[in-house]
Amino acid sequence: MRPSPPPPPDEGTRLGPLVTLTSDFGLTDSYVGEMKGAILMRAGVSIVDITHDLRPGDVHAGAWTLRRIWTRFPAGTVHLCVVDPTVGSDRRAIAARAAERWFVGPDNGLLGFLGHPSFGPLEIDEVRSLRPPPDPTGMAPTFHGRDLFAPAAAALATGGPDEALGEPLAPASLVPLDLTPPRRGPGGITGTVVHVDRFGNLVTDIPVGWLAAEPRVRVGATTLAGLSTSYADVLPGEPLLTRGSAETLEVSVRDGRADDTLGVSRGDAVVAAS
Amino acid sequence: MRPSPPPPPDEGTRLGPLVTLTSDFGLTDSYVGEMKGAILMRAGVSIVDITHDLRPGDVHAGAWTLRRIWTRFPAGTVHLCVVDPTVGSDRRAIAARAAERWFVGPDNGLLGFLGHPSFGPLEIDEVRSLRPPPDPTGMAPTFHGRDLFAPAAAALATGGPDEALGEPLAPASLVPLDLTPPRRGPGGITGTVVHVDRFGNLVTDIPVGWLAAEPRVRVGATTLAGLSTSYADVLPGEPLLTRGSAETLEVSVRDGRADDTLGVSRGDAVVAAS
Amino acid sequence: MRPSPPPPPDEGTRLGPLVTLTSDFGLTDSYVGEMKGAILMRAGVSIVDITHDLRPGDVHAGAWTLRRIWTRFPAGTVHLCVVDPTVGSDRRAIAARAAERWFVGPDNGLLGFLGHPSFGPLEIDEVRSLRPPPDPTGMAPTFHGRDLFAPAAAALATGGPDEALGEPLAPASLVPLDLTPPRRGPGGITGTVVHVDRFGNLVTDIPVGWLAAEPRVRVGATTLAGLSTSYADVLPGEPLLTRGSAETLEVSVRDGRADDTLGVSRGDAVVAAS
Repeated sequence: MRPSPPPPPDEGTRLGPLVTLTSDFGLTDSYVGEMKGAILMRAGVSIVDITHDLRPGDVHAGAWTLRRIWTRFPAGTVHLCVVDPTVGSDRRAIAARAAERWFVGPDNGLLGFLGHPSFGPLEIDEVRSLRPPPDPTGMAPTFHGRDLFAPAAAALATGGPDEALGEPLAPASLVPLDLTPPRRGPGGITGTVVHVDRFGNLVTDIPVGWLAAEPRVRVGATTLAGLSTSYADVLPGEPLLTRGSAETLEVSVRDGRADDTLGVSRGDAVVAAS
Repeated sequence: MRPSPPPPPDEGTRLGPLVTLTSDFGLTDSYVGEMKGAILMRAGVSIVDITHDLRPGDVHAGAWTLRRIWTRFPAGTVHLCVVDPTVGSDRRAIAARAAERWFVGPDNGLLGFLGHPSFGPLEIDEVRSLRPPPDPTGMAPTFHGRDLFAPAAAALATGGPDEALGEPLAPASLVPLDLTPPRRGPGGITGTVVHVDRFGNLVTDIPVGWLAAEPRVRVGATTLAGLSTSYADVLPGEPLLTRGSAETLEVSVRDGRADDTLGVSRGDAVVAAS
Repeated sequence: MRPSPPPPPDEGTRLGPLVTLTSDFGLTDSYVGEMKGAILMRAGVSIVDITHDLRPGDVHAGAWTLRRIWTRFPAGTVHLCVVDPTVGSDRRAIAARAAERWFVGPDNGLLGFLGHPSFGPLEIDEVRSLRPPPDPTGMAPTFHGRDLFAPAAAALATGGPDEALGEPLAPASLVPLDLTPPRRGPGGITGTVVHVDRFGNLVTDIPVGWLAAEPRVRVGATTLAGLSTSYADVLPGEPLLTRGSAETLEVSVRDGRADDTLGVSRGDAVVAAS
């Protein structure tokens, strides 16, 4: 016998619009729960946590996370991202539309990934300021994630942007992401370790499409050659290059941590022979 | 009056009734997942994690979390909170109804926030004991979160309280929360740091409504004046007072941690000139 | 184009089929979010996180977690478990059907719990290999969780196994779980501490059904007698035996950590007089 067939996946295969959350709020305080309440008070959406464990104030990590994940969710998804160390200042609160998704967050470089050469760039179709709630006493000066961004995400997810959005802004006016893109020159390709993951893998911003079939790569004091398709291609404890799951070059150590083994950290340079 | 039965998920604004979870179970063991299974076996609800990272046995932190979050979810929501160091003893298992929400958990002070002067207090409309499952071998003596509280929350969320609830209890019989409320006297307002968050912000229990327009506040060895509306109001590394997102006074340090900078911890006193 | 409004919620008691997730991916990287996106792109299911905080590569812990949780979710649930240190090698990717559930993951011992004497064993009704996506460039060599297992789980949850599943495999061909089962002999029952939880409780694999009414148990250098029904049965700081919430013997310390107090770790032996 097979498991009973699932309830008819209501015309379409969705439980409702999707809203993803990315923040530096952590999971110990109630902040993420309060942000979800602010969304669910307003809209019947499915909320997906991407991560809330970004280092406090780490705008670069937020931008990299958004760049990784947006293609993994369907058109129509709203991506809410709050890394907002200058909350309450005059930094703008915005929603940007690109590739049939909305991206909502503070205008502090976080959404600058959309136009950044490292990350596409995506064509931005529309940028709007967010309209504060009618009663400003309902907005805590230090928690726009709950009181400004979440209501806007809820409205955008359920197709009601007009009540949430303010004036149109020029896409070119977005605060850019302060990040040197990888570059190709006569000496080869120079990129950066943009993330070190839980397993100690070194994630770079060098697109795998830029690499030769048998790349030679220098990272820290180590030079590696050839793209592996499995950690099992090398012996335990040995380093290897892989096509990473963000379609960029990664450096790993089988059954070990590449950051520790190779003495490499986020921000370090990676050079590939061209 | 009972909470209106789960909002007829009308107009497509809800995915179903809401159940929030707050516990000290952590996210490494499977306990939270098992509790969710116990709910979803019984009811098609949307579950929202508030936090599971309360310090083991920290009833005060659970009460403070509930106090913060209940207003952020719609009427009809069931708030399940399990911090239960005396699970299996003769402490009562209860559901309390207030403000059109149900609060479910052990009667060990956790739900005492409902009647506590620091937290409203809310008028409690009904308290009921929870009825153990018909087959007591189905209830693990050390995991009432899964086997007693979760089934009750599921039943309450879907409008079937009668099967889950036992005898009515007197609201006044709830175990009180052992916490000194903030007080106003000739010498000013005296409150407590009730929470230190991920960012090092000192959250107090002094309602902002009690403060003068230009408050003077002493915390640890530091005296601060004036409520800021943004961390950017001061220079990096400097302390400031803000209207916190729970509508109570908070003390922060821009781009830093107030707890470390000011040498202040949870439980320390805060005094505001009146 | 704007997102379409949410579909009308269905009136049953489920929000859709259930998919549980168990992994060693952590919650800091975006991997879990990407895996969820891969599921929600394909199917309107409710996703329940069991844990993502398994120690990297800890197949035993993954197997134990699955063994604990599968009974806590309804028939029809798909349990996706990814602890996959040899991702990209020739280890098989499989789906196994037992007890009206599907279990999806790498064939590295993780699903070996199904046939293991410690864990039932369950009768396995069907095992199938997973079919890689038609375009292999769509599959990252190091992230089958997102690109192979998640799509299969989505298909199985919504009743479309044929598109996701490949050839039938013999249940007996599954890689077994390398774990000594508890055993009963003339000298008593010998088992193992298979998990130490957040509270320091020592979870063993000895079924409580094997124990005498007043068991005597030796763990480390300590001998304990009698099953307690509440931590409050002993004084603070004292050890006790309980019927654990996985229906196996546990050793705890009231208001303390049994691992620290008794000097016992995962993998240590536990002996009960018969």
